[in-house]
Amino acid sequence: MDLANIQRRIREFRDARDWMQFHNPKNLAISIVLEATELLEHFQWKSPDESEAHAKAARDDIADEIADVSVYLIELADNLGIDLEQAILRKLDKNAAKYPAEKSKGNAKKYTEL
Amino acid sequence: MDLANIQRRIREFRDARDWMQFHNPKNLAISIVLEATELLEHFQWKSPDESEAHAKAARDDIADEIADVSVYLIELADNLGIDLEQAILRKLDKNAAKYPAEKSKGNAKKYTEL
Amino acid sequence: MDLANIQRRIREFRDARDWMQFHNPKNLAISIVLEATELLEHFQWKSPDESEAHAKAARDDIADEIADVSVYLIELADNLGIDLEQAILRKLDKNAAKYPAEKSKGNAKKYTEL
Amino acid sequence: MDLANIQRRIREFRDARDWMQFHNPKNLAISIVLEATELLEHFQWKSPDESEAHAKAARDDIADEIADVSVYLIELADNLGIDLEQAILRKLDKNAAKYPAEKSKGNAKKYTEL
Repeated sequence: MDLANIQRRIREFRDARDWMQFHNPKNLAISIVLEATELLEHFQWKSPDESEAHAKAARDDIADEIADVSVYLIELADNLGIDLEQAILRKLDKNAAKYPAEKSKGNAKKYTEL
Repeated sequence: MDLANIQRRIREFRDARDWMQFHNPKNLAISIVLEATELLEHFQWKSPDESEAHAKAARDDIADEIADVSVYLIELADNLGIDLEQAILRKLDKNAAKYPAEKSKGNAKKYTEL
Repeated sequence: MDLANIQRRIREFRDARDWMQFHNPKNLAISIVLEATELLEHFQWKSPDESEAHAKAARDDIADEIADVSVYLIELADNLGIDLEQAILRKLDKNAAKYPAEKSKGNAKKYTEL
Repeated sequence: MDLANIQRRIREFRDARDWMQFHNPKNLAISIVLEATELLEHFQWKSPDESEAHAKAARDDIADEIADVSVYLIELADNLGIDLEQAILRKLDKNAAKYPAEKSKGNAKKYTEL
């Protein structure tokens, strides 16, 4: 994924509209939540099986919602000077330590309950 | 960003714990929202200026929260066969059409109110 | 329900801590979302049936989460001079008009799709 | 507030549409979050002062959003046999113990940091 290109496109879009004044970390975090709930709304009343079927049937709409969350996430990381790839890899390592495979296998318990 | 590598790491982490049974689209969408609100909690009572200062002071913690949202987003896109990079680029084009620069400049109105 | 008593208790709690400075409508709306997601976290990985069983088994914890959302909701309505009971009754009337029983019976479609 | 009357109205509305099949605790918790974020969307890009002004200017719309959250909260409590008034009063007592006035005065620290 050409993240540098996406970051550049996001910055240009924002700055052409003079929107940096609205894009403090708090407002971007709110926006990530709001876009995430638009994604969740797709599945509000669906059973687990229906959620699988709906995700396929409405794949383009869902791709748009996933993209909306991603755009704000990428902008927030960019604004804060966070290397998104390194942050993800580092967190995956932390998660592996928090959730040892042998203790977590087949259960969804929180690490505080393992 | 080596997205294929991150996707592989996420799949291996999940499958080593036999967690695919929990990762239907509905549950992943819930998880994206929950991680996004952990990010937002950092800024709950902060003024805009304080949110800038806090984002710098707590950058590593915030990077972890951004990573948590990203991991579930990337997994959901992967599970649904969505090309995340293409989805983002396509949505950026749609956004540019929805928010013409001359109409949106310096205001935060929703496209339905422009 | 003695709402006036609850409102009084909430105001006294807040003012004894000099917290009105933090309780603008935006921050209260954020707080309602954050408490609502703590409630949702209880059911993150649960099937529909498991969510019924868990709600019974963890009823006191869930009552606390419901109370946390309620407290911020009641404070926000109070701060804005909104009569919560009238607001709820008015909205129930609107919902009845948006979702005619004969069209909505047994389906969970949004009113825009009926 | 005549909570029993509101509970009765909510049950009748739901049952006339045969919607109990969708209203398990997980789905109601999702719905509380979704309605809460519709409330938050009002303040997405607003400064603290603008959020005060907007809350007054759009008071009826905001009352509707507050009502939407309240309706799902009241239904969830009702379905689980939770006495909402007692739950709120009990939680206010817990909060008072978690946030001693002398330690919390004028600061918004979480109880874990006091």
